[in-house]
Amino acid sequence: MKTILIIGIGAGDPDYLTVQAIKALNRTDVFFLMDKGQAKTKLRALREVICRRHIAPGHPHRFVEAPSPPRDTQPADYRACVDELNAAKQAVFERMIADMADGETAGILVWGDPMLYDSTIRNIEAIAVAGTHAIQYEVIPGISAVQALAARHKIPLNRIAEPVLLTTGRRLAEGFPADARSVVVLLDGEDTYRQFTGQNMEIYWGAYLGTADEILIAGKLDEVVEEIHRRRSEARRKHGWIMDTYLMRRA
Amino acid sequence: MKTILIIGIGAGDPDYLTVQAIKALNRTDVFFLMDKGQAKTKLRALREVICRRHIAPGHPHRFVEAPSPPRDTQPADYRACVDELNAAKQAVFERMIADMADGETAGILVWGDPMLYDSTIRNIEAIAVAGTHAIQYEVIPGISAVQALAARHKIPLNRIAEPVLLTTGRRLAEGFPADARSVVVLLDGEDTYRQFTGQNMEIYWGAYLGTADEILIAGKLDEVVEEIHRRRSEARRKHGWIMDTYLMRRA
Repeated sequence: MKTILIIGIGAGDPDYLTVQAIKALNRTDVFFLMDKGQAKTKLRALREVICRRHIAPGHPHRFVEAPSPPRDTQPADYRACVDELNAAKQAVFERMIADMADGETAGILVWGDPMLYDSTIRNIEAIAVAGTHAIQYEVIPGISAVQALAARHKIPLNRIAEPVLLTTGRRLAEGFPADARSVVVLLDGEDTYRQFTGQNMEIYWGAYLGTADEILIAGKLDEVVEEIHRRRSEARRKHGWIMDTYLMRRA
Repeated sequence: MKTILIIGIGAGDPDYLTVQAIKALNRTDVFFLMDKGQAKTKLRALREVICRRHIAPGHPHRFVEAPSPPRDTQPADYRACVDELNAAKQAVFERMIADMADGETAGILVWGDPMLYDSTIRNIEAIAVAGTHAIQYEVIPGISAVQALAARHKIPLNRIAEPVLLTTGRRLAEGFPADARSVVVLLDGEDTYRQFTGQNMEIYWGAYLGTADEILIAGKLDEVVEEIHRRRSEARRKHGWIMDTYLMRRA
């Protein structure tokens, strides 16, 4: 039997690691790394800081790195593209698992929380179900970008007794959800918030949350929309990538 | 100036504490405690475990305990009742803040994450805005019951590319939200999931998450609905209180 630990390492700040995650790091024999794109160097460096800071000096461990499968950024069929990408990622994980010795524990470090808009749980579960490898796995939650956003803006996510919708930029582009006055948007590569000016919205926006590059902007959407767009574009140009999140709601 | 740290301590398991929260505990001179009801003894004991385990032996600190203001459990006007309760809590916090020495730091330990269905941020912000006391405050995120639920069931919260609605039992009782296929329900004292049998739903349910008393049940709602109801009732009777959370979605 081999063990896979899917470890949420929080949204950027190494201090977001939980005690449970630190214990998981120290149970891990081999770390699977699969970063991609322009954020790769930065994210890899942050992961190394986390491992250096939190793994006991005497604990032997190794890193196995595989390139993340390429992804069509403007697919005709989004869902089919995601399925294809996940199948490719599963194949990569399977090869890494095949190389583990029996009884070993692998760790997969997931930014934020593995339960939210991340494919790792699904991919490892598919491998476990397929049964080619005898594996067991655990999930360790981590502080998500949603939580970092609320904490850094010092706001509750929900209004009193009201629901909150977590969604993607792609979905938001279809219209503001009818059932939710508060919407948290992840994975928005298209500045979708700009579609909602003139509708009495307020926005709490954050990028590179929990890191030294963090940017926070909040206010009435109509008043800050251009500032967010400008600073987002500048930051993306400067760093070569951006990860941002926002809460938007009717004022 | 006095400093208030609103510290998310996670959903039950002391290992859910983040490094940031542990650092915050060790910056705190005085802990404000305001528990209520039948869960009080258990929660107070868990808080003590957390403090004992994570505060450095040499760090002087004290506890100030105040009873949580009483609350009408079946109010005619829910929102007015919540406002009244929060005003009463603010008055309690104000008295505790008045008793702090200038330059001191107070810590408020919040179960789960302070950003989700918790009034502490709102109450402390109201005190800061009122200006009677010169205070600054920080929010430290914690692992919420929602995350503990997903991690313990080893599931992603969202389906691929789909939104997730976080809501309350009270809201869910008004009907299954139109815009969200996946719904996470908190603060449900009424077994509201029972209203949704015969609709091809699946449920992932958890109680006392992260503690030794944890109960997890998952499956097709129609098949597990009675088991959840029975075990929930039994556990509530046994412990005198229950805190449960669930994810429900169309299968």
